Amino acid sequence: MKNSFGNSIAVTLFGESHGEYIGAVLDGMPSGVKIDLDFIKKELEKRHSIAEFSTKRQEKDEFKIISGVKNGFTIGTPICFLIENRDKRSEDYNDTSFVLRPSHADFVNFVKNGSFADTCGGGHSSGRITAALVAVGAVCLLLLKNYGITVGTHIYDIGGIKDREFNDIEKDINKLNGEAFAVLDETAKEKMSEKIKQVKEDGDSIGGILETAVIGIKPGFGEPWFDTVEGLISHAVFSIPAVKGIEFGKGFSFAHSLGSEVNDEYYIKDNEINLKTNNCGGITGGITNGNPIIFRTAFKPTPSIKKPQNTVNIKTKTETTLSIKGRHDPLIVHRARAVVDSVTALVLADILSADGFFKV
Amino acid sequence: MKNSFGNSIAVTLFGESHGEYIGAVLDGMPSGVKIDLDFIKKELEKRHSIAEFSTKRQEKDEFKIISGVKNGFTIGTPICFLIENRDKRSEDYNDTSFVLRPSHADFVNFVKNGSFADTCGGGHSSGRITAALVAVGAVCLLLLKNYGITVGTHIYDIGGIKDREFNDIEKDINKLNGEAFAVLDETAKEKMSEKIKQVKEDGDSIGGILETAVIGIKPGFGEPWFDTVEGLISHAVFSIPAVKGIEFGKGFSFAHSLGSEVNDEYYIKDNEINLKTNNCGGITGGITNGNPIIFRTAFKPTPSIKKPQNTVNIKTKTETTLSIKGRHDPLIVHRARAVVDSVTALVLADILSADGFFKV
Amino acid sequence: MKNSFGNSIAVTLFGESHGEYIGAVLDGMPSGVKIDLDFIKKELEKRHSIAEFSTKRQEKDEFKIISGVKNGFTIGTPICFLIENRDKRSEDYNDTSFVLRPSHADFVNFVKNGSFADTCGGGHSSGRITAALVAVGAVCLLLLKNYGITVGTHIYDIGGIKDREFNDIEKDINKLNGEAFAVLDETAKEKMSEKIKQVKEDGDSIGGILETAVIGIKPGFGEPWFDTVEGLISHAVFSIPAVKGIEFGKGFSFAHSLGSEVNDEYYIKDNEINLKTNNCGGITGGITNGNPIIFRTAFKPTPSIKKPQNTVNIKTKTETTLSIKGRHDPLIVHRARAVVDSVTALVLADILSADGFFKV
Amino acid sequence: MKNSFGNSIAVTLFGESHGEYIGAVLDGMPSGVKIDLDFIKKELEKRHSIAEFSTKRQEKDEFKIISGVKNGFTIGTPICFLIENRDKRSEDYNDTSFVLRPSHADFVNFVKNGSFADTCGGGHSSGRITAALVAVGAVCLLLLKNYGITVGTHIYDIGGIKDREFNDIEKDINKLNGEAFAVLDETAKEKMSEKIKQVKEDGDSIGGILETAVIGIKPGFGEPWFDTVEGLISHAVFSIPAVKGIEFGKGFSFAHSLGSEVNDEYYIKDNEINLKTNNCGGITGGITNGNPIIFRTAFKPTPSIKKPQNTVNIKTKTETTLSIKGRHDPLIVHRARAVVDSVTALVLADILSADGFFKV
Repeated sequence: MKNSFGNSIAVTLFGESHGEYIGAVLDGMPSGVKIDLDFIKKELEKRHSIAEFSTKRQEKDEFKIISGVKNGFTIGTPICFLIENRDKRSEDYNDTSFVLRPSHADFVNFVKNGSFADTCGGGHSSGRITAALVAVGAVCLLLLKNYGITVGTHIYDIGGIKDREFNDIEKDINKLNGEAFAVLDETAKEKMSEKIKQVKEDGDSIGGILETAVIGIKPGFGEPWFDTVEGLISHAVFSIPAVKGIEFGKGFSFAHSLGSEVNDEYYIKDNEINLKTNNCGGITGGITNGNPIIFRTAFKPTPSIKKPQNTVNIKTKTETTLSIKGRHDPLIVHRARAVVDSVTALVLADILSADGFFKV
Repeated sequence: MKNSFGNSIAVTLFGESHGEYIGAVLDGMPSGVKIDLDFIKKELEKRHSIAEFSTKRQEKDEFKIISGVKNGFTIGTPICFLIENRDKRSEDYNDTSFVLRPSHADFVNFVKNGSFADTCGGGHSSGRITAALVAVGAVCLLLLKNYGITVGTHIYDIGGIKDREFNDIEKDINKLNGEAFAVLDETAKEKMSEKIKQVKEDGDSIGGILETAVIGIKPGFGEPWFDTVEGLISHAVFSIPAVKGIEFGKGFSFAHSLGSEVNDEYYIKDNEINLKTNNCGGITGGITNGNPIIFRTAFKPTPSIKKPQNTVNIKTKTETTLSIKGRHDPLIVHRARAVVDSVTALVLADILSADGFFKV
Repeated sequence: MKNSFGNSIAVTLFGESHGEYIGAVLDGMPSGVKIDLDFIKKELEKRHSIAEFSTKRQEKDEFKIISGVKNGFTIGTPICFLIENRDKRSEDYNDTSFVLRPSHADFVNFVKNGSFADTCGGGHSSGRITAALVAVGAVCLLLLKNYGITVGTHIYDIGGIKDREFNDIEKDINKLNGEAFAVLDETAKEKMSEKIKQVKEDGDSIGGILETAVIGIKPGFGEPWFDTVEGLISHAVFSIPAVKGIEFGKGFSFAHSLGSEVNDEYYIKDNEINLKTNNCGGITGGITNGNPIIFRTAFKPTPSIKKPQNTVNIKTKTETTLSIKGRHDPLIVHRARAVVDSVTALVLADILSADGFFKV
Repeated sequence: MKNSFGNSIAVTLFGESHGEYIGAVLDGMPSGVKIDLDFIKKELEKRHSIAEFSTKRQEKDEFKIISGVKNGFTIGTPICFLIENRDKRSEDYNDTSFVLRPSHADFVNFVKNGSFADTCGGGHSSGRITAALVAVGAVCLLLLKNYGITVGTHIYDIGGIKDREFNDIEKDINKLNGEAFAVLDETAKEKMSEKIKQVKEDGDSIGGILETAVIGIKPGFGEPWFDTVEGLISHAVFSIPAVKGIEFGKGFSFAHSLGSEVNDEYYIKDNEINLKTNNCGGITGGITNGNPIIFRTAFKPTPSIKKPQNTVNIKTKTETTLSIKGRHDPLIVHRARAVVDSVTALVLADILSADGFFKV
């Protein structure tokens, strides 16, 4: 199943950028979870463009839940979300462009599905579909919250401008939840802001890195082969358009570290075993070790830019140039953070559910 | 299924570090693939310790194939590999240590499986199990080779000493296949060698980064949701003990790049569409774009070190120190490259098989 | 994934009997399949009540396809069907009955989902959901038709009144496709008709047996372990409410047969290997043998009857009697035949797709 | 994954009839289950030929467990069973016969795997492989027994000679466990015995029906779509060579029943809800209802018979006759009962595990 992810709690995505609806089915959610619609709305809003960074007009993601919820609680059956495509183009789909947008999925979509491919606005590969992911992820976040587990993401790096690392994670996540532009350090925030506006003015785009933390998860979840927590999170995270890297704990900087510097030593506190450091990012041998899960995801710049690019027309097989007009987001990470939180919640809810956690 | 990976071509792993055998079942391999036992042996040898870097005695991975192969060809049924644990300890398993090795899976294994856990030599979480992965991966490499697809990995970075990047990939991979220590640049190789010997002398260990290339794969394989090529490779790769990060193409350095710099532009050559650059590492929108797949994996230092570490005894719940005696590998990346090649081959064989590629 | 079925071509179901919509997502359909809306409508009509047998008012299944189809052709992305629940009750769901209907899913639904269970009209367990199955099944039937594969079902037995067996299968299926009451033999049809009307008058219900044939499928599809064609069809078929048995070829009557009587012997015709008989129902060793697939499914009587029954109120835990008023179908098999065709088409499309059949 | 079955507790099969070993990997078993080797041996013995019915020489299934068990208890990792093929033919495999045995898998195996197919003794499709299924099933039976769940099977019908139905199921199963020829009624047993000997003398074979009961399972397990208990059991059961039908509760005889006769009414006893009858065979709406699970499986006659049969040589494409010499089993049901128990235990262990049952 290509458009499904998860075993015990699973999501199935559907929809194209210019169809009537996009949506998702969330299967396996236990009955009795209170569905806080305001919370879901807020999660969807985190995914929206920020006016000052964007030439895009503000979307409003009107969603409806058409199954699996009754009287405000889950009933133990699949939960289907529909999100309307408000500004979809008219029924006349004949405007499909055969001019390939560089680093977009247009080309591979045509290779895969031939002349029947719908690449209009990215079709099914569009970042638009992540709205449905955020909706079902919000339900998973609600479930996890009932069990004391919290997920949060901040912008770690844009163009070399770095935010501070997580510190008091619970407090930091609370702060981030209230922010449209999820940066912890105010100075870094301002600098990033300047940078983005400059990139926008230049008709260009820029990449970035997000850092995500999960607190409250107990040790012992995940498998050594093959369903490591890292493997499952990364599998899901790479579906988010533009993600090109992921690292857990010290990640790539482990390459320059000695075992004696970075091994996470154990000690006893209150008769419980604890780790002195969290270099492994909460996961050892693929399994949660009780420390916060920490990971970073790298995003390439949004491929749609105003600056002219060399490309080809796939129908005529001729070379041409392309300057993407109209709506334009110079940055994606500030919006993607809601998507990363969502897929993280989805994966963790699945792992916990498969282990009988919500039954005990 | 926890110890299985793949849909159309899939592997199931079994075995503990000190059991009679470890092994793997490879399911879904088409019939008629010639099984070159020498090739499999050579792949297994790539996974061995290098004498000068290791205090470990050389293992010899004697394997047998007990099903799925007849008269030297696959017959279309599951292929089971058994690899003997030659230097397993005697039947007396009572020597299980309750002193947790920092950054090893001992702790999470005890949490997960209670007092029944087998942590002896890492048990089922041991790197030893990757020998079985390499064996089945070698069969996948043979299959891919029949279709013109080649996989190869070099050591990209150890402690800040960097190899050169892939250049003429086919030639580079050929060179790497003949090397025990897979570094492309001779100067880098020597420096890394010095570094590792120093680390070994210090009773310490060091991490590193591998870079992998796949050539010969056609565009159009993989899915936008959720079975992206990046997602599937990363899911499998994180099972390899010590892997803590993965990035495709420019990966984390995209964070400092502008769209105008890194978008992969198209051009026409011989009436075919080509990419001018390969910043996306051969994958756009989760799907192969016809360029070589390029990715890097980050490994933490091998956690077993001679230097004394603080830790606890999980049985007595008391603090203690630990200095890991005896066999010792100060580095894992030079051995892990065979495992990365294997899981990459496994994942790609699965993706191609699921798409009917081997039927056409 | 509980509400999903299939690997390469898969369905995910959602919806409750009294929600706004029920629906299904069909994933994995190749691009370029022409979507004949009239055909889908006709398949949905086959699932409708027949006025003379039913006290139920005629439903009209208005469906819309909200993704995966553009300009009348599939585009290679998930196809989502929505079917409106026209006569759903008002938002006031407080009328949930705690009086358990014997042989309905109410009891197990309450056990499984506690007080949050939606048993209103059967909730998610309702036969209503099969409308969505028929819709996606119709798309699979269209796909199979493009490859010369046809599926058809007739009523084989109601209360001991038997239809004749399939004869010239292609002709028989054509005839059945035009019939609301799918019986091949006119005399049997009349007798069954009388029987059903009598049962209806008595406020009772009756079970029955369907017989299904698939023609045009080549030999060599399916697996010996565990994905036999019989196993996959039966897995899906038992989801259809009221199915309690399935048999392939001679099925249960094999128990009274000798090998010498029922082994399917081979002969040569036009240089091709053929079977003299089709006692195995088109499947040998779990794999298609090139003969028509023949199987029969047994349905229990619809549990909703007007006649008073003893039961309990699960809330008050007291005994009571129940006479199900209002809408009433004394028979389900005449409607279920469309559902059996659908799941058969779905399973076969999946098996063929997984084997790369639609790529060659 | 073709040779794997199960989600939370899963089996993977491997091996050919004339390879060195056949075997199975059981994944997902919780740690701490005591492995009673004598019990496993006895289950394997139930699968053996009965001397007086067979011309086959008694096999002895020597098995070894090479992973997942330590000091007599499961350790929470995959359990691999190896069973030696004692009387496998020599390495010279050139004796593969191209004369197709009617109703055997030879033909479809050649179609599927071409000239590389191993049909020697049935290859991977051989009933021999069920020994490995019985071994892993025995571990599941041990697990279920720890939770008060018992599975048992008797021969219900051979050639029209019927055993009595289950009565006091617990007592009946205990009796059956001690019997090589699992018939409850002594008179029926004798008649069946006579019948089988006659069939054997005639060089023929005969089919039969098994009836299986499961007691001790709580209500609420299974899913309405698609993982009904019936669907999952039937999916697995159809892998057993020669199975051609399955029915639950009243099964096919529901076709002749009225709702008022067969609906399972509820009543209260000791403040608990009970069913007056068990016509649904312990499963309503796909979900266990707390009553014993009852189902029957139909087997075709063993296809290997001494009597001459018409067939073809697939290599020369010429017609010929075949009289299967040597070892010969005129009946399979008496041996298959152990396999049915095994797959039933496997499926139920999986369903319960997926629901977190063994964690609570």
